[in-house]
Amino acid sequence: MLMFLDDYSEGAHPAVLEALVAHNGGQELGYGEDQHSRLATARIAAQVGRDCEVHLLVGGTQTNLTCLGAFLRPHEGVLAAQTAHINVHETGAVEATGHRIVQIPTPTGKLDPGLVDQALAQHQDEHSVRPAGIFLAQATEAGGVYSGEELRTLCSHAHARGLWVYLDGARLAPALAVLGARLDLIASCGVDAFFAGGTKNGALCGEAVVLVNDELRRDFRYHMKQRGALLAKGRLLGIQFARLFDRDDLWYRLGAQANAAAARLARGLRDSGVPPRAAEANQVFVELPGDAAARLATAVRFHVWSRGERGTLIRLVCSWATDDATVDRLIDEVRRALAPSTATETPPGEAPESGTMPGTGHGA
Amino acid sequence: MLMFLDDYSEGAHPAVLEALVAHNGGQELGYGEDQHSRLATARIAAQVGRDCEVHLLVGGTQTNLTCLGAFLRPHEGVLAAQTAHINVHETGAVEATGHRIVQIPTPTGKLDPGLVDQALAQHQDEHSVRPAGIFLAQATEAGGVYSGEELRTLCSHAHARGLWVYLDGARLAPALAVLGARLDLIASCGVDAFFAGGTKNGALCGEAVVLVNDELRRDFRYHMKQRGALLAKGRLLGIQFARLFDRDDLWYRLGAQANAAAARLARGLRDSGVPPRAAEANQVFVELPGDAAARLATAVRFHVWSRGERGTLIRLVCSWATDDATVDRLIDEVRRALAPSTATETPPGEAPESGTMPGTGHGA
Amino acid sequence: MLMFLDDYSEGAHPAVLEALVAHNGGQELGYGEDQHSRLATARIAAQVGRDCEVHLLVGGTQTNLTCLGAFLRPHEGVLAAQTAHINVHETGAVEATGHRIVQIPTPTGKLDPGLVDQALAQHQDEHSVRPAGIFLAQATEAGGVYSGEELRTLCSHAHARGLWVYLDGARLAPALAVLGARLDLIASCGVDAFFAGGTKNGALCGEAVVLVNDELRRDFRYHMKQRGALLAKGRLLGIQFARLFDRDDLWYRLGAQANAAAARLARGLRDSGVPPRAAEANQVFVELPGDAAARLATAVRFHVWSRGERGTLIRLVCSWATDDATVDRLIDEVRRALAPSTATETPPGEAPESGTMPGTGHGA
Amino acid sequence: MLMFLDDYSEGAHPAVLEALVAHNGGQELGYGEDQHSRLATARIAAQVGRDCEVHLLVGGTQTNLTCLGAFLRPHEGVLAAQTAHINVHETGAVEATGHRIVQIPTPTGKLDPGLVDQALAQHQDEHSVRPAGIFLAQATEAGGVYSGEELRTLCSHAHARGLWVYLDGARLAPALAVLGARLDLIASCGVDAFFAGGTKNGALCGEAVVLVNDELRRDFRYHMKQRGALLAKGRLLGIQFARLFDRDDLWYRLGAQANAAAARLARGLRDSGVPPRAAEANQVFVELPGDAAARLATAVRFHVWSRGERGTLIRLVCSWATDDATVDRLIDEVRRALAPSTATETPPGEAPESGTMPGTGHGA
Repeated sequence: MLMFLDDYSEGAHPAVLEALVAHNGGQELGYGEDQHSRLATARIAAQVGRDCEVHLLVGGTQTNLTCLGAFLRPHEGVLAAQTAHINVHETGAVEATGHRIVQIPTPTGKLDPGLVDQALAQHQDEHSVRPAGIFLAQATEAGGVYSGEELRTLCSHAHARGLWVYLDGARLAPALAVLGARLDLIASCGVDAFFAGGTKNGALCGEAVVLVNDELRRDFRYHMKQRGALLAKGRLLGIQFARLFDRDDLWYRLGAQANAAAARLARGLRDSGVPPRAAEANQVFVELPGDAAARLATAVRFHVWSRGERGTLIRLVCSWATDDATVDRLIDEVRRALAPSTATETPPGEAPESGTMPGTGHGA
Repeated sequence: MLMFLDDYSEGAHPAVLEALVAHNGGQELGYGEDQHSRLATARIAAQVGRDCEVHLLVGGTQTNLTCLGAFLRPHEGVLAAQTAHINVHETGAVEATGHRIVQIPTPTGKLDPGLVDQALAQHQDEHSVRPAGIFLAQATEAGGVYSGEELRTLCSHAHARGLWVYLDGARLAPALAVLGARLDLIASCGVDAFFAGGTKNGALCGEAVVLVNDELRRDFRYHMKQRGALLAKGRLLGIQFARLFDRDDLWYRLGAQANAAAARLARGLRDSGVPPRAAEANQVFVELPGDAAARLATAVRFHVWSRGERGTLIRLVCSWATDDATVDRLIDEVRRALAPSTATETPPGEAPESGTMPGTGHGA
Repeated sequence: MLMFLDDYSEGAHPAVLEALVAHNGGQELGYGEDQHSRLATARIAAQVGRDCEVHLLVGGTQTNLTCLGAFLRPHEGVLAAQTAHINVHETGAVEATGHRIVQIPTPTGKLDPGLVDQALAQHQDEHSVRPAGIFLAQATEAGGVYSGEELRTLCSHAHARGLWVYLDGARLAPALAVLGARLDLIASCGVDAFFAGGTKNGALCGEAVVLVNDELRRDFRYHMKQRGALLAKGRLLGIQFARLFDRDDLWYRLGAQANAAAARLARGLRDSGVPPRAAEANQVFVELPGDAAARLATAVRFHVWSRGERGTLIRLVCSWATDDATVDRLIDEVRRALAPSTATETPPGEAPESGTMPGTGHGA
Repeated sequence: MLMFLDDYSEGAHPAVLEALVAHNGGQELGYGEDQHSRLATARIAAQVGRDCEVHLLVGGTQTNLTCLGAFLRPHEGVLAAQTAHINVHETGAVEATGHRIVQIPTPTGKLDPGLVDQALAQHQDEHSVRPAGIFLAQATEAGGVYSGEELRTLCSHAHARGLWVYLDGARLAPALAVLGARLDLIASCGVDAFFAGGTKNGALCGEAVVLVNDELRRDFRYHMKQRGALLAKGRLLGIQFARLFDRDDLWYRLGAQANAAAARLARGLRDSGVPPRAAEANQVFVELPGDAAARLATAVRFHVWSRGERGTLIRLVCSWATDDATVDRLIDEVRRALAPSTATETPPGEAPESGTMPGTGHGA
């Protein structure tokens, strides 16, 4: 069974694993004060290229809830696309810290100044929460990538209205590869805080939070500890991020590799007559007609995004570990699913095995 | 300036005030254990007509957050219409207790089994909150009233899916007057918990919570105390509710009075060429063409509900204290606003003085 | 049965009730924007005598949780005496807003700079909460009153350490009467925020929050609304506080009246051979030997504070409504309880009827 | 510089690391549904020896806040020793989930039925939180170990009062080694939920939660996800725990190894004239007279527990990685510190370099 479910099904990239093995011995201080964490955060800060604070956390939901919980006062809420991961796939983690997510419907998963202003217009007095910041994802859960220009415009628009901008970078490496940019781009566009994702880009776990805005930095380690996000053996994160952000730009290269696999897949789909709807970074969204998705599901695991009258929109995710041969096998399976006579028979109408839940996949 | 902003601009009904004066002397136990609170809750329970627990709280937002905070476990959320008061006008009070409101778009402000099932279909595993209950308002914020049949269907549908039903009865008295029913209707339809609103129906403050479902009762006084909702001088609530639910059915009659005023207003609007969009209970929603709303705002305070291309939808609320003469003056003002030549000039395009925020009014 | 349980067993002071009756008619804006609330808050601000913001809330627990929830960031805690009301009698209301109360053991219920520093020494890094402020009660739950000098010292000590000072003034009127002072004293000593209690001093309900420190004012009405503490018919609070702080100094006089009753009681106890342990303001703590408390409980309701080998420490609370005759009857009952042969027999060892829970009374 | 600060300064045990390397390749399902996690939880459940649910989380604070947040309803609190880790070194993580920790002073860090009943006596009505469960640590933060008999008594006492018992097993392996027992002991004593610590016993990260009591299991994965405790690449935890609980009993043996090092250290201290105060499992608490601790701190890192008139109580922690030679070097350093003339001179009175904060060490 081929797996194109998500980008966290793999283990660590071999180079990251080697680093873990190489630095396993000896004693280190706990809670992120070890030499590896210091090295990793220094490397990341250097690449951000401006004054900032860097912290290493374990996972994406943890990072989102720790950051937003730290940034928001009780009566404040955060604006986010209705499809945002924090809104649909984190089990109310932000609400559990006491805060409302102000949901903004947007077909592309992207926010823009007009959408922000519409939301603000609905929140003008003490009978509504006070919007304090904007949550973006780069790449978005729907596969889109904000251009530098879009980010800059959105950030300056937000700042003019007293809002900060927080960017979920679970898939930041592929997004930066699309833009041909590096970490400094994000901060230079005005993003106040963001994280550079490790889990989906070569690490076993780990997200590197970058706090640019001085006001958002205060006492961040307290918030980490309180949310259970201050790892005792911080070296586990330090070693991985030090390696990912080492001189060979491993983290950036892995993002580009994932995109290359996705691009190959997109070409194959186009050639097969099912051009993908969106495939900017490492996620490919394609609508398969009729029962094709159900047939494909007998050979491939993927997430069903939505079901419509004409077919099923599915998500196929590539990672740094997806090789060409696997992509090509997937394309073959898609062709077989599209031309059922040549494939093993699947009873029409049978639901795909995976992704029985419409909506974004868990790791979107 | 006429005021049709809401139904909490008046003081207490004279009979309620008299009761407060009559029972002011002497000492009483605190925290709802006084004789008046015992009498009031016994009267209400008797009218509910089945085993239940009754508690007296101070206000609507307090009641909603105390009840929902008590009923929900941390990972659970409550389904509610997108226009629900808890969703748009309570400053994230439910989220501040740690819970997500699962918003359901519905043009009428009413939920039905199909809408519930659609929402449930989006919440099927541990990556989403677990819907545990349904929030209804009777009457709804958009002025509608659930029939007994609608309530019964919705409750049995909910129960079959393991959901409880909680009903916000800030305007329950007018709603019951529409239905020609009494408190027993609500419980007999299967509603698990609800409150009978006092603030908007003759009291200075106070909402009487009725817990029918045994599982939702556990330790409710602890929750009240923790949320600051256990009034020290409980007699303030006890005296008022004992009076409202005394033999003369004051509480029911006041709801009917508010509806009568709204009906007179609705007739007047119809006769003036602007038939109201909804006027089931004591709220009248009417769309005024062009700048008529702006002109009306020079003489009348009201909430603007939404602005469209053809005009402005406004809300006019009547209460038990709204007399015929005042309604007739309002109708005159509406006519004047509709035929500007006969009225004091208002610069066209000027925004209404009140209700600058589109959306539901605060007390909706 | 005589009742000396607490100071919230009475109704409203007649003058307050009269004001409610006098101003019941007519329409007013909701949510504290009515003319009475504006008048009340202006009067209180004038008496505070410096720039401040005044808000009217309903009850003490509600006020404490709204204020502390607003002032504290998630990782911050508040220092308080172990006997503080928020620590022992508010059902974890502060914790329910997400914050730790750092408990400081203190026999008198009073804090001082040394105790504060000891607590700070235990909270020095991100593995502990960050103490952000100090909770005081004036009068304290144990009946003590901070002198102006004590308050000033404590506030300047706190400020030097980056802490704000919040003062629970549920019994502020009696405390100020002890000091011969007015509201301006509290602010002039450096207290950053406090409330002037109405519930225990002549009102049916209501606490007036005074925010002196500019940083603690931000968006306070949002916090009120979110906690269910923004009363719809704000006039109920406005009318009462406008009357209490009218030119005749009713609020101050009621505090002095309660103290006078307590002083008469204290003299009587002393003359009866049981000098009270503490009786600074309107609460009298006295230890009754042997089974005297049990005997007294057959005729008087009161709270048992603690039980020891030599006797039982009880709390007797006087209010503005406690007249001399009632105090004298209480003293007679105490004498009878101390000399059982002249009283109706009580089986020795029987527990007092009320106050079966050792610890502070609920309204302490 | 020797390090006896804690038991999380080491990397992974080599066998655990080898397993991570061996199973790094290939794709696995995310969020704990991978084959390794299934294997690990099955092995642990088998060793518990009764019906239970096992979940793998990342760290100790995360585990405590996820479990207690899941088990408690809003108005409920948990009883814990004043020295409990959740009370002193988790930055109010439990309070941040909305719950009070009811602190019980106990010199040994151990709870017993009498202490529990005293606490319950202070929490009898809705003005206090409702105690719902008991938090224990095994071994305790002060180095003690509950015997099976003590646990059994405490659990049956708790159950008789409607309380559950939750046991923090960050150092469960050393504790079980002391008792010569295995995981089945904990459940057989009646503990309702506990975790078997990996971080301090050979893993890079990870705590295995065992839910025995059926009522505490409900929807646990929802709680994990909401708290950011459901690791995307669950294999990281699965592989480690599958290895630790493999047939060679690695997890148990590592606990015994840590104890053996501590026992060697205790003997050495005794022979040096400073018999340790407590050294039941892998933590050794010893009081060094005069300035000896300050001198020792020039060569060894450790935590200062408390400072008294006669000397300084320090904590020395051994782990599975502490070899005999290192222990012997530490003993030499202690002797040198005790007999300063033979050692490099240290200015008397200088504070130890590490552990400047009295109280339990962070990882206690």
